Amino acid sequence: MNKSYVGQPFILYHGWRSSASRRVRLCLAEKGLSYESRLVNMLKGEQHSPEYLSINPNGVVPALLHGDRVLYESSAIAEYLDELFPEPSIRPRDAYDRLVMRNFVRWVDDYCLPRLIVFNWSQAMQAAATQWSDRELAERIARVPSASRKEAWTRVARKPYSDEEKADAMTGLLKLLEKMQAMLANDHSWIVGERLSIADLAAIPFVMRINELNPSAIANFPFVESWWNRVRQRPSFSEARICAFTATDAEVEAL
Amino acid sequence: MNKSYVGQPFILYHGWRSSASRRVRLCLAEKGLSYESRLVNMLKGEQHSPEYLSINPNGVVPALLHGDRVLYESSAIAEYLDELFPEPSIRPRDAYDRLVMRNFVRWVDDYCLPRLIVFNWSQAMQAAATQWSDRELAERIARVPSASRKEAWTRVARKPYSDEEKADAMTGLLKLLEKMQAMLANDHSWIVGERLSIADLAAIPFVMRINELNPSAIANFPFVESWWNRVRQRPSFSEARICAFTATDAEVEAL
Repeated sequence: MNKSYVGQPFILYHGWRSSASRRVRLCLAEKGLSYESRLVNMLKGEQHSPEYLSINPNGVVPALLHGDRVLYESSAIAEYLDELFPEPSIRPRDAYDRLVMRNFVRWVDDYCLPRLIVFNWSQAMQAAATQWSDRELAERIARVPSASRKEAWTRVARKPYSDEEKADAMTGLLKLLEKMQAMLANDHSWIVGERLSIADLAAIPFVMRINELNPSAIANFPFVESWWNRVRQRPSFSEARICAFTATDAEVEAL
Repeated sequence: MNKSYVGQPFILYHGWRSSASRRVRLCLAEKGLSYESRLVNMLKGEQHSPEYLSINPNGVVPALLHGDRVLYESSAIAEYLDELFPEPSIRPRDAYDRLVMRNFVRWVDDYCLPRLIVFNWSQAMQAAATQWSDRELAERIARVPSASRKEAWTRVARKPYSDEEKADAMTGLLKLLEKMQAMLANDHSWIVGERLSIADLAAIPFVMRINELNPSAIANFPFVESWWNRVRQRPSFSEARICAFTATDAEVEAL
Protein backbone atom coordinates (compact mmCIF):
# COMPACT_ATOMS: atom_id res chain seq x y z
CA MET A 1 0.00 0.00 0.00
CA ASN A 2 2.92 2.35 0.76
CA LYS A 3 4.67 1.53 -2.51
CA SER A 4 2.21 3.55 -4.56
CA TYR A 5 2.91 6.58 -2.40
CA VAL A 6 6.66 6.58 -2.95
CA GLY A 7 6.31 8.53 -6.22
CA GLN A 8 3.67 10.98 -4.96
CA PRO A 9 4.55 14.71 -4.79
CA PHE A 10 5.17 16.56 -1.52
CA ILE A 11 3.75 19.98 -0.65
CA LEU A 12 5.21 21.53 2.51
CA TYR A 13 3.32 24.22 4.44
CA HIS A 14 5.97 25.86 6.60
CA GLY A 15 7.79 28.95 7.87
CA TRP A 16 11.47 29.57 7.14
CA ARG A 17 12.24 30.39 10.78
CA SER A 18 9.96 27.86 12.51
CA SER A 19 11.99 25.19 14.37
CA ALA A 20 9.57 22.37 13.57
CA SER A 21 9.52 23.43 9.89
CA ARG A 22 13.31 23.45 9.87
CA ARG A 23 13.31 19.92 11.31
CA VAL A 24 11.09 18.60 8.53
CA ARG A 25 13.08 20.41 5.83
CA LEU A 26 16.26 18.81 7.21
CA CYS A 27 14.63 15.35 7.05
CA LEU A 28 13.47 15.93 3.47
CA ALA A 29 16.96 17.13 2.50
CA GLU A 30 18.70 14.16 4.15
CA LYS A 31 16.34 11.90 2.19
CA GLY A 32 16.93 13.81 -1.06
CA LEU A 33 13.20 14.52 -1.39
CA SER A 34 11.99 17.64 -3.17
CA TYR A 35 8.75 19.45 -2.40
CA GLU A 36 6.62 22.37 -3.40
CA SER A 37 7.02 25.13 -0.80
CA ARG A 38 3.96 26.95 0.56
CA LEU A 39 4.87 29.62 3.10
CA VAL A 40 2.37 30.18 5.91
CA ASN A 41 2.38 33.81 7.06
CA MET A 42 2.10 33.61 10.85
CA LEU A 43 1.71 37.38 11.31
CA LYS A 44 -1.30 37.35 9.05
CA GLY A 45 -2.69 34.40 11.00
CA GLU A 46 -2.79 32.12 7.96
CA GLN A 47 -2.12 29.12 10.22
CA HIS A 48 -5.54 29.72 11.83
CA SER A 49 -7.49 30.15 8.60
CA PRO A 50 -10.26 27.60 7.95
CA GLU A 51 -8.29 26.38 4.89
CA TYR A 52 -5.14 25.66 6.88
CA LEU A 53 -7.02 24.23 9.88
CA SER A 54 -8.63 21.72 7.52
CA ILE A 55 -5.06 20.52 6.83
CA ASN A 56 -3.60 20.80 10.35
CA PRO A 57 -6.27 21.13 13.06
CA ASN A 58 -3.54 22.10 15.55
CA GLY A 59 -3.04 25.37 13.66
CA VAL A 60 0.75 25.22 13.67
CA VAL A 61 3.42 24.72 11.00
CA PRO A 62 4.58 22.56 9.40
CA ALA A 63 2.12 20.34 7.58
CA LEU A 64 3.11 18.07 4.73
CA LEU A 65 0.88 16.82 1.95
CA HIS A 66 2.04 13.58 0.36
CA GLY A 67 -0.27 12.88 -2.54
CA ASP A 68 -3.70 12.88 -0.87
CA ARG A 69 -2.26 12.19 2.60
CA VAL A 70 -2.13 14.97 5.17
CA LEU A 71 0.72 14.77 7.69
CA TYR A 72 1.48 16.92 10.71
CA GLU A 73 3.61 16.79 13.91
CA SER A 74 7.23 17.06 12.85
CA SER A 75 8.47 14.05 14.85
CA ALA A 76 5.82 11.78 13.33
CA ILE A 77 6.52 13.16 9.83
CA ALA A 78 10.21 12.34 10.31
CA GLU A 79 9.46 8.70 11.15
CA TYR A 80 7.00 8.45 8.27
CA LEU A 81 9.64 9.66 5.80
CA ASP A 82 12.12 7.12 7.15
CA GLU A 83 9.61 4.28 6.86
CA LEU A 84 8.68 5.13 3.27
CA PHE A 85 12.19 6.06 2.08
CA PRO A 86 14.47 3.81 4.16
CA GLU A 87 17.81 4.87 2.64
CA PRO A 88 19.70 6.76 3.85
CA SER A 89 18.11 5.93 7.20
CA ILE A 90 17.67 8.65 9.82
CA ARG A 91 16.84 6.23 12.63
CA PRO A 92 19.28 4.01 14.55
CA ARG A 93 19.22 0.29 13.79
CA ASP A 94 18.90 -0.77 17.42
CA ALA A 95 15.45 -0.77 19.05
CA TYR A 96 16.78 0.65 22.33
CA ASP A 97 18.59 3.45 20.49
CA ARG A 98 15.30 4.24 18.77
CA LEU A 99 13.61 4.51 22.16
CA VAL A 100 16.34 6.88 23.36
CA MET A 101 15.94 8.89 20.12
CA ARG A 102 12.16 9.15 20.55
CA ASN A 103 12.47 10.23 24.18
CA PHE A 104 15.10 12.84 23.29
CA VAL A 105 12.95 14.30 20.50
CA ARG A 106 9.93 14.43 22.77
CA TRP A 107 11.94 16.17 25.49
CA VAL A 108 13.10 18.75 22.92
CA ASP A 109 9.45 19.36 21.98
CA ASP A 110 8.05 19.41 25.51
CA TYR A 111 10.87 21.14 27.39
CA CYS A 112 12.91 23.17 24.89
CA LEU A 113 10.30 24.40 22.41
CA PRO A 114 8.22 26.46 24.90
CA ARG A 115 11.47 28.10 26.03
CA LEU A 116 12.66 28.85 22.50
CA ILE A 117 9.29 30.43 21.70
CA VAL A 118 10.01 33.10 24.34
CA PHE A 119 12.85 34.36 22.14
CA ASN A 120 11.51 33.60 18.68
CA TRP A 121 8.13 35.19 19.21
CA SER A 122 9.62 38.22 20.97
CA GLN A 123 11.87 38.74 17.95
CA ALA A 124 9.47 37.88 15.12
CA MET A 125 5.95 38.69 16.32
CA GLN A 126 6.07 41.26 19.11
CA ALA A 127 6.51 44.46 17.05
CA ALA A 128 3.42 43.68 14.99
CA ALA A 129 1.35 42.02 17.72
CA THR A 130 1.61 44.97 20.12
CA GLN A 131 -0.04 47.14 17.43
CA TRP A 132 -3.18 45.01 17.21
CA SER A 133 -6.30 46.53 18.73
CA ASP A 134 -7.95 44.68 21.61
CA ARG A 135 -10.70 43.62 19.25
CA GLU A 136 -8.26 42.35 16.60
CA LEU A 137 -6.30 40.45 19.27
CA ALA A 138 -9.49 38.88 20.65
CA GLU A 139 -10.57 37.82 17.16
CA ARG A 140 -7.18 36.29 16.44
CA ILE A 141 -6.98 34.44 19.75
CA ALA A 142 -10.47 33.04 19.30
CA ARG A 143 -9.18 31.18 16.23
CA VAL A 144 -6.12 29.61 17.98
CA PRO A 145 -6.88 25.93 18.72
CA SER A 146 -4.56 25.29 21.70
CA ALA A 147 -4.61 26.89 25.15
CA SER A 148 -0.82 27.17 25.32
CA ARG A 149 -0.65 29.01 21.99
CA LYS A 150 -3.52 31.33 23.02
CA GLU A 151 -1.41 32.22 26.06
CA ALA A 152 1.73 32.75 23.94
CA TRP A 153 -0.10 35.11 21.57
CA THR A 154 -1.58 37.06 24.49
CA ARG A 155 1.85 37.37 26.07
CA VAL A 156 3.62 38.59 22.95
CA ALA A 157 0.85 41.08 22.14
CA ARG A 158 0.11 42.50 25.58
CA LYS A 159 2.61 41.37 28.23
CA PRO A 160 5.97 40.80 26.55
CA TYR A 161 8.29 38.35 28.28
CA SER A 162 10.43 40.04 30.95
CA ASP A 163 14.23 39.91 31.11
CA GLU A 164 13.91 37.52 34.05
CA GLU A 165 11.67 35.19 32.05
CA LYS A 166 14.11 35.32 29.15
CA ALA A 167 16.99 34.47 31.48
CA ASP A 168 15.03 31.49 32.83
CA ALA A 169 14.22 30.38 29.30
CA MET A 170 17.90 30.55 28.32
CA THR A 171 18.88 28.53 31.41
CA GLY A 172 16.42 25.90 30.25
CA LEU A 173 17.69 25.95 26.67
CA LEU A 174 21.26 25.43 27.85
CA LYS A 175 20.15 22.11 29.37
CA LEU A 176 19.88 20.93 25.76
CA LEU A 177 23.62 21.48 25.28
CA GLU A 178 24.34 19.74 28.61
CA LYS A 179 22.21 16.75 27.64
CA MET A 180 23.74 16.58 24.15
CA GLN A 181 27.26 16.76 25.59
CA ALA A 182 26.47 13.72 27.79
CA MET A 183 24.88 11.79 24.90
CA LEU A 184 27.65 12.66 22.43
CA ALA A 185 30.20 11.43 25.00
CA ASN A 186 29.26 7.86 24.06
CA ASP A 187 31.05 7.91 20.73
CA HIS A 188 31.44 11.64 20.02
CA SER A 189 29.64 11.48 16.67
CA TRP A 190 25.87 11.40 16.87
CA ILE A 191 23.37 11.99 19.65
CA VAL A 192 22.03 8.42 19.51
CA GLY A 193 23.28 5.36 17.69
CA GLU A 194 25.71 4.80 14.86
CA ARG A 195 24.67 7.51 12.42
CA LEU A 196 22.91 10.85 12.12
CA SER A 197 19.30 10.39 13.27
CA ILE A 198 16.09 12.31 13.83
CA ALA A 199 17.57 13.23 17.25
CA ASP A 200 20.35 15.23 15.56
CA LEU A 201 17.93 16.78 13.06
CA ALA A 202 15.60 17.77 15.93
CA ALA A 203 18.47 19.42 17.82
CA ILE A 204 19.92 21.45 14.90
CA PRO A 205 17.28 24.25 14.81
CA PHE A 206 17.61 24.69 18.59
CA VAL A 207 21.41 24.76 18.64
CA MET A 208 21.30 27.24 15.75
CA ARG A 209 19.14 29.62 17.80
CA ILE A 210 21.07 29.14 21.05
CA ASN A 211 24.24 30.01 19.15
CA GLU A 212 22.65 33.17 17.75
CA LEU A 213 21.27 34.28 21.11
CA ASN A 214 24.24 33.24 23.26
CA PRO A 215 27.32 32.95 21.03
CA SER A 216 29.70 31.91 23.81
CA ALA A 217 27.55 29.02 25.08
CA ILE A 218 28.54 26.20 22.74
CA ALA A 219 32.26 26.52 23.50
CA ASN A 220 31.52 25.19 27.01
CA PHE A 221 30.41 21.87 25.49
CA PRO A 222 33.25 20.60 23.29
CA PHE A 223 31.47 17.49 21.96
CA VAL A 224 28.52 19.69 20.98
CA GLU A 225 30.89 22.18 19.36
CA SER A 226 32.49 19.56 17.12
CA TRP A 227 29.04 18.05 16.35
CA TRP A 228 27.83 21.55 15.44
CA ASN A 229 30.76 22.08 13.09
CA ARG A 230 30.04 18.76 11.41
CA VAL A 231 26.28 19.07 10.97
CA ARG A 232 26.66 22.55 9.41
CA GLN A 233 28.95 21.03 6.75
CA ARG A 234 26.28 18.63 5.58
CA PRO A 235 24.48 19.49 2.34
CA SER A 236 21.17 19.18 4.18
CA PHE A 237 21.99 22.23 6.31
CA SER A 238 22.12 24.58 3.33
CA GLU A 239 19.42 22.71 1.39
CA ALA A 240 17.04 23.14 4.33
CA ARG A 241 18.05 26.83 4.49
CA ILE A 242 18.82 26.91 8.20
CA CYS A 243 19.97 30.52 8.08
CA ALA A 244 20.02 33.54 10.38
CA PHE A 245 16.80 34.19 12.25
CA THR A 246 17.00 37.84 11.16
CA ALA A 247 16.93 36.98 7.45
CA THR A 248 13.75 38.03 5.66
CA ASP A 249 11.68 35.51 3.71
CA ALA A 250 12.95 37.10 0.48
CA GLU A 251 16.56 36.71 1.61
CA VAL A 252 16.05 33.07 2.56
CA GLU A 253 14.36 32.31 -0.73
CA ALA A 254 17.17 33.97 -2.66
CA LEU A 255 19.72 31.54 -1.16
CA MET B 1 22.43 -6.61 18.80
CA ASN B 2 18.72 -6.79 19.68
CA LYS B 3 18.63 -10.56 19.31
CA SER B 4 20.55 -11.10 22.54
CA TYR B 5 18.02 -9.01 24.41
CA VAL B 6 15.00 -11.05 23.38
CA GLY B 7 15.57 -13.54 26.21
CA GLN B 8 16.40 -10.98 28.88
CA PRO B 9 14.05 -10.65 31.89
CA PHE B 10 11.70 -7.69 32.40
CA ILE B 11 11.22 -5.82 35.67
CA LEU B 12 8.31 -3.36 35.67
CA TYR B 13 8.18 -0.46 38.14
CA HIS B 14 4.56 0.65 38.13
CA GLY B 15 1.33 1.48 39.92
CA TRP B 16 -1.82 -0.59 39.50
CA ARG B 17 -4.01 2.47 38.92
CA SER B 18 -1.58 4.60 36.87
CA SER B 19 -2.82 5.03 33.27
CA ALA B 20 0.68 4.91 31.76
CA SER B 21 1.47 1.77 33.80
CA ARG B 22 -1.77 0.19 32.59
CA ARG B 23 -0.78 0.97 28.99
CA VAL B 24 2.57 -0.80 29.36
CA ARG B 25 1.01 -3.79 31.14
CA LEU B 26 -1.50 -4.08 28.25
CA CYS B 27 1.37 -4.05 25.72
CA LEU B 28 3.27 -6.72 27.67
CA ALA B 29 0.13 -8.85 27.91
CA GLU B 30 -0.66 -8.53 24.19
CA LYS B 31 2.92 -9.65 23.50
CA GLY B 32 2.68 -12.53 25.98
CA LEU B 33 5.67 -11.19 27.94
CA SER B 34 5.98 -11.82 31.65
CA TYR B 35 7.74 -9.53 34.10
CA GLU B 36 8.67 -9.13 37.71
CA SER B 37 6.35 -6.54 39.30
CA ARG B 38 7.77 -3.82 41.54
CA LEU B 39 5.08 -1.51 42.88
CA VAL B 40 6.06 2.12 43.36
CA ASN B 41 4.18 3.70 46.29
CA MET B 42 3.29 7.17 45.07
CA LEU B 43 1.90 8.31 48.44
CA LYS B 44 5.23 7.51 50.06
CA GLY B 45 6.99 9.41 47.29
CA GLU B 46 8.99 6.39 46.17
CA GLN B 47 8.94 7.71 42.58
CA HIS B 48 11.07 10.65 43.77
CA SER B 49 13.60 8.61 45.74
CA PRO B 50 17.21 8.80 44.52
CA GLU B 51 17.05 5.07 43.70
CA TYR B 52 14.02 5.45 41.45
CA LEU B 53 15.22 8.71 39.87
CA SER B 54 18.39 6.88 38.84
CA ILE B 55 16.06 4.61 36.83
CA ASN B 56 13.57 7.21 35.56
CA PRO B 57 14.83 10.81 35.91
CA ASN B 58 11.31 12.07 35.17
CA GLY B 59 10.14 10.64 38.51
CA VAL B 60 6.99 9.04 37.15
CA VAL B 61 5.77 5.48 36.62
CA PRO B 62 6.19 3.24 34.79
CA ALA B 63 9.79 2.30 34.11
CA LEU B 64 10.81 -0.99 32.59
CA LEU B 65 14.12 -2.77 33.00
CA HIS B 66 14.97 -5.14 30.17
CA GLY B 67 18.19 -6.87 31.16
CA ASP B 68 20.57 -3.97 31.78
CA ARG B 69 18.51 -1.56 29.67
CA VAL B 70 16.39 1.10 31.37
CA LEU B 71 13.23 2.16 29.53
CA TYR B 72 10.72 4.88 30.32
CA GLU B 73 7.95 6.85 28.57
CA SER B 74 5.09 4.46 27.95
CA SER B 75 4.63 5.30 24.26
CA ALA B 76 8.32 4.70 23.51
CA ILE B 77 8.28 1.47 25.57
CA ALA B 78 5.32 0.26 23.50
CA GLU B 79 7.18 0.79 20.20
CA TYR B 80 10.32 -0.82 21.63
CA LEU B 81 8.38 -3.94 22.59
CA ASP B 82 6.86 -4.14 19.11
CA GLU B 83 10.28 -3.77 17.45
CA LEU B 84 11.88 -6.48 19.57
CA PHE B 85 8.91 -8.86 19.62
CA PRO B 86 7.21 -8.26 16.24
CA GLU B 87 4.44 -10.86 16.58
CA PRO B 88 1.64 -10.28 17.30
CA SER B 89 2.25 -6.74 16.09
CA ILE B 90 0.65 -3.80 17.90
CA ARG B 91 1.44 -1.28 15.16
CA PRO B 92 -0.35 -0.92 11.80
CA ARG B 93 1.50 -2.10 8.70
CA ASP B 94 1.03 1.13 6.77
CA ALA B 95 3.44 4.04 7.41
CA TYR B 96 0.66 6.63 7.30
CA ASP B 97 -1.43 4.64 9.77
CA ARG B 98 1.61 4.56 12.08
CA LEU B 99 1.83 8.36 11.86
CA VAL B 100 -1.86 8.65 12.74
CA MET B 101 -1.30 6.20 15.63
CA ARG B 102 1.68 8.19 16.98
CA ASN B 103 -0.21 11.48 16.77
CA PHE B 104 -3.24 9.97 18.53
CA VAL B 105 -1.11 8.56 21.36
CA ARG B 106 0.68 11.87 21.79
CA TRP B 107 -2.64 13.73 21.90
CA VAL B 108 -3.86 11.33 24.60
CA ASP B 109 -0.70 12.07 26.61
CA ASP B 110 -0.68 15.84 26.07
CA TYR B 111 -4.39 16.61 26.15
CA CYS B 112 -6.17 13.83 28.05
CA LEU B 113 -3.66 12.85 30.75
CA PRO B 114 -3.52 16.25 32.53
CA ARG B 115 -7.34 16.16 32.62
CA LEU B 116 -7.51 12.61 33.94
CA ILE B 117 -5.04 13.50 36.69
CA VAL B 118 -7.61 15.98 38.07
CA PHE B 119 -9.84 13.01 38.93
CA ASN B 120 -7.26 10.34 39.70
CA TRP B 121 -5.22 12.43 42.08
CA SER B 122 -8.31 13.85 43.81
CA GLN B 123 -9.45 10.30 44.43
CA ALA B 124 -6.14 8.62 45.27
CA MET B 125 -3.87 11.27 46.78
CA GLN B 126 -5.93 14.09 48.21
CA ALA B 127 -6.95 12.54 51.55
CA ALA B 128 -3.34 11.84 52.48
CA ALA B 129 -1.76 14.90 50.87
CA THR B 130 -3.99 17.38 52.70
CA GLN B 131 -2.62 15.95 55.98
CA TRP B 132 1.02 16.74 55.17
CA SER B 133 2.55 19.63 57.10
CA ASP B 134 3.80 22.61 55.09
CA ARG B 135 7.33 21.46 55.73
CA GLU B 136 6.64 17.90 54.57
CA LEU B 137 4.89 19.21 51.46
CA ALA B 138 7.81 21.55 50.66
CA GLU B 139 10.29 18.69 51.10
CA ARG B 140 8.27 16.43 48.83
CA ILE B 141 7.79 19.04 46.13
CA ALA B 142 11.49 19.88 46.13
CA ARG B 143 12.14 16.32 44.94
CA VAL B 144 9.63 16.40 42.05
CA PRO B 145 11.55 16.83 38.75
CA SER B 146 8.89 18.46 36.55
CA ALA B 147 7.16 21.82 36.98
CA SER B 148 3.75 20.44 35.96
CA ARG B 149 3.91 17.65 38.56
CA LYS B 150 5.07 20.11 41.26
CA GLU B 151 1.93 22.09 40.47
CA ALA B 152 -0.27 18.97 40.55
CA TRP B 153 1.07 17.93 43.98
CA THR B 154 0.59 21.45 45.35
CA ARG B 155 -2.97 21.52 44.05
CA VAL B 156 -3.97 18.17 45.50
CA ALA B 157 -2.40 18.95 48.89
CA ARG B 158 -3.49 22.55 49.37
CA LYS B 159 -5.98 23.72 46.77
CA PRO B 160 -8.06 20.74 45.67
CA TYR B 161 -9.60 20.98 42.20
CA SER B 162 -12.98 22.75 42.24
CA ASP B 163 -16.20 21.31 40.85
CA GLU B 164 -15.89 23.73 37.94
CA GLU B 165 -12.38 22.51 37.15
CA LYS B 166 -13.59 18.93 37.33
CA ALA B 167 -16.45 19.72 34.95
CA ASP B 168 -13.99 21.30 32.50
CA ALA B 169 -11.68 18.29 32.80
CA MET B 170 -14.58 15.94 32.05
CA THR B 171 -15.59 18.01 29.01
CA GLY B 172 -12.02 17.59 27.79
CA LEU B 173 -11.96 13.85 28.46
CA LEU B 174 -15.18 13.37 26.50
CA LYS B 175 -13.34 14.70 23.44
CA LEU B 176 -11.47 11.40 23.52
CA LEU B 177 -14.71 9.51 22.94
CA GLU B 178 -15.69 11.94 20.18
CA LYS B 179 -12.33 11.52 18.45
CA MET B 180 -12.44 7.73 18.84
CA GLN B 181 -15.97 7.61 17.42
CA ALA B 182 -14.75 9.46 14.31
CA MET B 183 -11.67 7.23 13.93
CA LEU B 184 -13.60 3.99 14.55
CA ALA B 185 -16.08 5.05 11.88
CA ASN B 186 -13.50 4.09 9.22
CA ASP B 187 -13.98 0.36 9.66
CA HIS B 188 -15.63 0.09 13.13
CA SER B 189 -12.94 -2.19 14.55
CA TRP B 190 -9.74 -0.45 15.65
CA ILE B 191 -8.76 3.15 16.15
CA VAL B 192 -6.09 3.07 13.42
CA GLY B 193 -5.30 0.47 10.80
CA GLU B 194 -6.23 -3.15 10.35
CA ARG B 195 -5.67 -4.53 13.84
CA LEU B 196 -5.46 -3.58 17.50
CA SER B 197 -2.58 -1.12 17.93
CA ILE B 198 -0.83 0.99 20.52
CA ALA B 199 -3.56 3.59 19.87
CA ASP B 200 -6.20 1.20 21.26
CA LEU B 201 -3.98 0.18 24.18
CA ALA B 202 -3.33 3.86 24.97
CA ALA B 203 -7.06 4.62 24.98
CA ILE B 204 -8.19 1.71 27.19
CA PRO B 205 -7.08 3.14 30.58
CA PHE B 206 -8.77 6.44 29.76
CA VAL B 207 -12.05 4.94 28.58
CA MET B 208 -12.03 2.74 31.70
CA ARG B 209 -11.85 5.82 33.92
CA ILE B 210 -14.34 7.88 31.89
CA ASN B 211 -16.79 4.98 32.22
CA GLU B 212 -16.28 4.84 36.00
CA LEU B 213 -16.65 8.61 36.45
CA ASN B 214 -19.43 9.16 33.92
CA PRO B 215 -21.23 5.85 33.32
CA SER B 216 -23.72 7.21 30.80
CA ALA B 217 -21.12 8.81 28.52
CA ILE B 218 -20.05 5.89 26.35
CA ALA B 219 -23.58 5.08 25.21
CA ASN B 220 -23.54 8.34 23.23
CA PHE B 221 -20.74 6.94 21.04
CA PRO B 222 -21.94 3.62 19.61
CA PHE B 223 -18.69 2.70 17.80
CA VAL B 224 -16.76 3.37 21.01
CA GLU B 225 -19.27 1.28 22.96
CA SER B 226 -18.83 -1.76 20.75
CA TRP B 227 -15.03 -1.25 20.75
CA TRP B 228 -15.15 -1.06 24.56
CA ASN B 229 -17.11 -4.30 24.77
CA ARG B 230 -14.57 -6.02 22.51
CA VAL B 231 -11.36 -4.81 24.15
CA ARG B 232 -12.61 -5.85 27.60
CA GLN B 233 -13.08 -9.41 26.29
CA ARG B 234 -9.42 -9.71 25.32
CA PRO B 235 -7.21 -11.76 27.64
CA SER B 236 -4.84 -8.77 27.90
CA PHE B 237 -7.50 -6.76 29.74
CA SER B 238 -7.61 -9.14 32.68
CA GLU B 239 -3.91 -10.06 32.48
CA ALA B 240 -3.02 -6.37 32.76
CA ARG B 241 -5.45 -6.11 35.69
CA ILE B 242 -7.35 -3.08 34.42
CA CYS B 243 -9.77 -3.11 37.33
CA ALA B 244 -11.81 -0.64 39.34
CA PHE B 245 -9.94 2.47 40.42
CA THR B 246 -11.27 1.94 43.95
CA ALA B 247 -9.66 -1.50 44.32
CA THR B 248 -6.80 -1.66 46.81
CA ASP B 249 -3.37 -2.91 45.79
CA ALA B 250 -4.07 -6.10 47.75
CA GLU B 251 -7.35 -6.64 45.90
CA VAL B 252 -5.70 -6.09 42.51
CA GLU B 253 -2.90 -8.47 43.34
CA ALA B 254 -5.37 -11.13 44.48
CA LEU B 255 -6.99 -11.16 41.03
